[in-house]
Amino acid sequence: MSVCAPRGFAASGVAAGIKGGAALDLALVAVDPPGPVAGAATFTTNKAAAAPVQVSRAHLAATGGRVAAVLLNSGCANAATGAEGLRAAQRSAEAVATLLGVGADEVLVCSTGLIGPRLPVELVESASPALVGGLGRTRGDAARAAEAILTTDTHAKEVVIERDGFCVGGMAKGAGMIAPRMATMLAVLTTDASVAPDLLARSLKGAVEESFNQLTVDGCTSTNDTVVAMASGLGAAVPAGELDEALGEACRRLALQLAEDAEGTTRVARVRVTGARSVDEARRAARAVAESNLVKTSLHGADPYWGRVLSELGASGSSIDVGRVRISYGATLVFADGLEVPHDRRAASAYLSRGLVEVTCDLGLGEGAATVLTTDLGPGYIEENMRTS
Amino acid sequence: MSVCAPRGFAASGVAAGIKGGAALDLALVAVDPPGPVAGAATFTTNKAAAAPVQVSRAHLAATGGRVAAVLLNSGCANAATGAEGLRAAQRSAEAVATLLGVGADEVLVCSTGLIGPRLPVELVESASPALVGGLGRTRGDAARAAEAILTTDTHAKEVVIERDGFCVGGMAKGAGMIAPRMATMLAVLTTDASVAPDLLARSLKGAVEESFNQLTVDGCTSTNDTVVAMASGLGAAVPAGELDEALGEACRRLALQLAEDAEGTTRVARVRVTGARSVDEARRAARAVAESNLVKTSLHGADPYWGRVLSELGASGSSIDVGRVRISYGATLVFADGLEVPHDRRAASAYLSRGLVEVTCDLGLGEGAATVLTTDLGPGYIEENMRTS
Repeated sequence: MSVCAPRGFAASGVAAGIKGGAALDLALVAVDPPGPVAGAATFTTNKAAAAPVQVSRAHLAATGGRVAAVLLNSGCANAATGAEGLRAAQRSAEAVATLLGVGADEVLVCSTGLIGPRLPVELVESASPALVGGLGRTRGDAARAAEAILTTDTHAKEVVIERDGFCVGGMAKGAGMIAPRMATMLAVLTTDASVAPDLLARSLKGAVEESFNQLTVDGCTSTNDTVVAMASGLGAAVPAGELDEALGEACRRLALQLAEDAEGTTRVARVRVTGARSVDEARRAARAVAESNLVKTSLHGADPYWGRVLSELGASGSSIDVGRVRISYGATLVFADGLEVPHDRRAASAYLSRGLVEVTCDLGLGEGAATVLTTDLGPGYIEENMRTS
Repeated sequence: MSVCAPRGFAASGVAAGIKGGAALDLALVAVDPPGPVAGAATFTTNKAAAAPVQVSRAHLAATGGRVAAVLLNSGCANAATGAEGLRAAQRSAEAVATLLGVGADEVLVCSTGLIGPRLPVELVESASPALVGGLGRTRGDAARAAEAILTTDTHAKEVVIERDGFCVGGMAKGAGMIAPRMATMLAVLTTDASVAPDLLARSLKGAVEESFNQLTVDGCTSTNDTVVAMASGLGAAVPAGELDEALGEACRRLALQLAEDAEGTTRVARVRVTGARSVDEARRAARAVAESNLVKTSLHGADPYWGRVLSELGASGSSIDVGRVRISYGATLVFADGLEVPHDRRAASAYLSRGLVEVTCDLGLGEGAATVLTTDLGPGYIEENMRTS
């Protein structure tokens, strides 16, 4: 059900031909029956933000957080496409808005794919009647929307979180160009909770910060990253804390799915830093370890070489005192008191061969803690990324 | 000749057994005849700095920049080895100092290899007589020293720069863990120029900043990075500018050799950013492009996908205006005025298949310029790094 699980939403996915074949490449998540509800979004911090990001930002600002639909395409990022790209994004929103009977600025747009090529907006326009006509509330409708936004992902990412009186649904795509500091992918969250736009925005920001922004695959922040949330208000008026928790859980589950399906990944690692001077220092240290190509290749080889972890902590810029640092792989302590702790290296390697592993670094200096999700770096990543055509 | 080319230096390399076989693993570069001369060094900024870095820093501070020899070993980083590691580094310096008849704090020590294992200082001590006894001024002596510091390097790196009235020689090792913000490897520079320690230190700092610190292989800054310079004073008293130039040229040539021999590398790219608001912004932007795994895998595939370059510029934090950015591969302009510039994609790919390529990004905003040297990311890097034992 994912995005259609909360009351008041319908979804659809069609093959518009943007990918040049029969593959689904155009998705719509719309308020049903059509009309604007509370909406919020977080966007990439990349200064080369794509046209759809610029248009969606402007639409949200114009409506003050009222959204009726999100239109998403794969197969083209509509980035670095100049004034024509902006017009194409705008025309896409207009095509869907007219069919739904809502304002164009109540439609947000998202694109994913290669940077550079122009968006074939005429294909979006001619596919729009089928897209809007195909809107439905079934599991299959949601699944088609989730599939239509994929690029090098191997499968769709969906989530449903049920809570007392309300529900949160979501879909996402990721694969590469995944890094902290912004959502780094496309995601649409829906909820039937009753909440004002400003509170929804605050709740979404927190949820994104602790989920997608704590995930790094290759340190790259794309031109198109967008996370949109819409709240139909058909369910209960929910205390802010409860919505925060449910949105956070939905985003964390989607982030884990993104990591597991990242390009060429064979395993996912949770890098947990505790005992840092502050949360910021914990995040910085955890990211340094999680983004290190040397740590990531060690993870690929299931090699418990804690020296690289210690070196990255030391190079991170966060405060460390080598004599206080404690490093563990799972439950096995491998470094403490400035020295290697005798341990069964074979068992540690066996642990690191799992699909999901934990690397914990206690800095022993304070109360700051953070967790960053990362992946191994193996030949698959290179295979996937060395050629775009 | 490398480090023995300037008058007043001798070198030696022996197999001490640290690597566990007949491989050369212990090197000495000493003032000849023995005695302290002006010396300077730059060290890693890693907070988990290895024992030899801590000891060498203390020695330089104690002598106020007087150095008689540099002792270097491969096969063990002597990092994360606690108080025993500090004693081992100190004892190594003492063993050589006694044989040379100089003060222990006039000897600097450098180590490279795995983090964690203790340095077998007894092997260093028993090899010291042969090491000191083997000191010589020939090309072969310098070559043995240069070979003894290698780890995963495939060949030694040496350089000689001849100038009016003086000469600069150098040797270095690198391979992995190469990144800006610190020298990122071991290097010893010698010169017969006559220069005071403080001027030598200033000159070395500048040379390192524009060479080794502008090289990135994997963004990792090691625990052991050290660059040492010694000036015998047997040659001319050289104006500061001339020594700066010669030391800079020596370091740039060594840095290029390091890049060309980096782990698993098939090509080297010069990422040049011009037109930035400031030199700092130019460096930040160039590093963002140079450290991007997506850019580096594109380089491996000789794929002229400029979109990733633009995206990294946008994500770098430096000021950019997409409409003013101009991106070129070699002499071929591929992006300008916010749009792709029509170009022969096949020719661009052929250009990117070369061993040394240039990616130029003109931001069109100011006068700031910087060049960062990087390498491609291919399966070789992963093969080399996925297992340490």
